[in-house]
Amino acid sequence: MQNDIMARFGHAVRKLRREQEISQEELAERCGLHRTYISDVELGKRNVSLENIERIASSLNTSLVNLFVEVDNG
Amino acid sequence: MQNDIMARFGHAVRKLRREQEISQEELAERCGLHRTYISDVELGKRNVSLENIERIASSLNTSLVNLFVEVDNG
Repeated sequence: MQNDIMARFGHAVRKLRREQEISQEELAERCGLHRTYISDVELGKRNVSLENIERIASSLNTSLVNLFVEVDNG
Repeated sequence: MQNDIMARFGHAVRKLRREQEISQEELAERCGLHRTYISDVELGKRNVSLENIERIASSLNTSLVNLFVEVDNG
């Protein structure tokens, strides 16, 4: 069973990434993370930590607040 | 040297906790975490993960968005 917050965070990342029409590979490269890690995040399989949350938000050209608006709405 | 996002997150947690006039012990108990962990979080020493971020927000009676408003303002 997936953890709710992890699933909601993953959905938010996927939504914002797709809105910007960038691939998982492109997002991963911008974050300095592996593509499979980004894939796992989007699937709600990762308990992402603050440093990587900030990298992902920054790489999606958004603020932490805007990212968590999507999480709370998810 | 402290990580910036970890330090900003810690300041936000401390600010919200003090506004509610609860102790680190009380917050830790509400979160189901150890007091020394909460102390380390507030000192910017912990790369807190999503599950614990949610526990902390919930225990501070706030949303993830409101918590990160404080982080972004910090």
